[in-house]
Amino acid sequence: MSDAFTADCPARTVLNHVSSRWGVLILASLQEGPMRFYVLRDRIGGISEKMLSQNLRVFVRDGLIAREVEATVPPQVTYSLTPLGRELATTLGGLVEWITHRIGDIVAARERHDEER
Amino acid sequence: MSDAFTADCPARTVLNHVSSRWGVLILASLQEGPMRFYVLRDRIGGISEKMLSQNLRVFVRDGLIAREVEATVPPQVTYSLTPLGRELATTLGGLVEWITHRIGDIVAARERHDEER
Repeated sequence: MSDAFTADCPARTVLNHVSSRWGVLILASLQEGPMRFYVLRDRIGGISEKMLSQNLRVFVRDGLIAREVEATVPPQVTYSLTPLGRELATTLGGLVEWITHRIGDIVAARERHDEER
Repeated sequence: MSDAFTADCPARTVLNHVSSRWGVLILASLQEGPMRFYVLRDRIGGISEKMLSQNLRVFVRDGLIAREVEATVPPQVTYSLTPLGRELATTLGGLVEWITHRIGDIVAARERHDEER
């Protein structure tokens, strides 16, 4: 059975893609609906175009994000979650929500920690 | 309000800690109960002692993991989830579970993708 705790297991590679620096934010953004590349870039503060396109490529290959090209001039590229990606994004949405909800407690913990040193 | 989508927000730093290469696996491991350093290292295939102690230090500061030192010779150090860390680990446990459950679909998607190129 595939196990994320095992170093050379497919499940570990997926975990690494998702929990890359930007993976969570890209998947959580697309929960709001399909987005063009530049809209996605502006949604995620601080991401470079290079990092965004690298991550999108990996997620398209994993079957989590679909890439659709409209034959306009210039061509418009839209990204959206696949059904599989939508399942994953729901799980991750809980994470982002939890962090947003608890950030005050975490900042307080850091302050206590730094005072004790 | 603290927002993980904004680059210089405290919520983003927490998201980065959790979704560091090893964060998810460390927190998910400690869901099984308190662990000594070397037990934790062996639980997570491929982690180096340096990466493990760096991550533990960050999570202790964030108030997510507690570090307890027993005054034996040599001193025994045990790590466990705090109540806050337990909440987060539950959220993340869902992620690891989802990946383990769906890995077959993801591997199949990759194969289709690579064949089409």
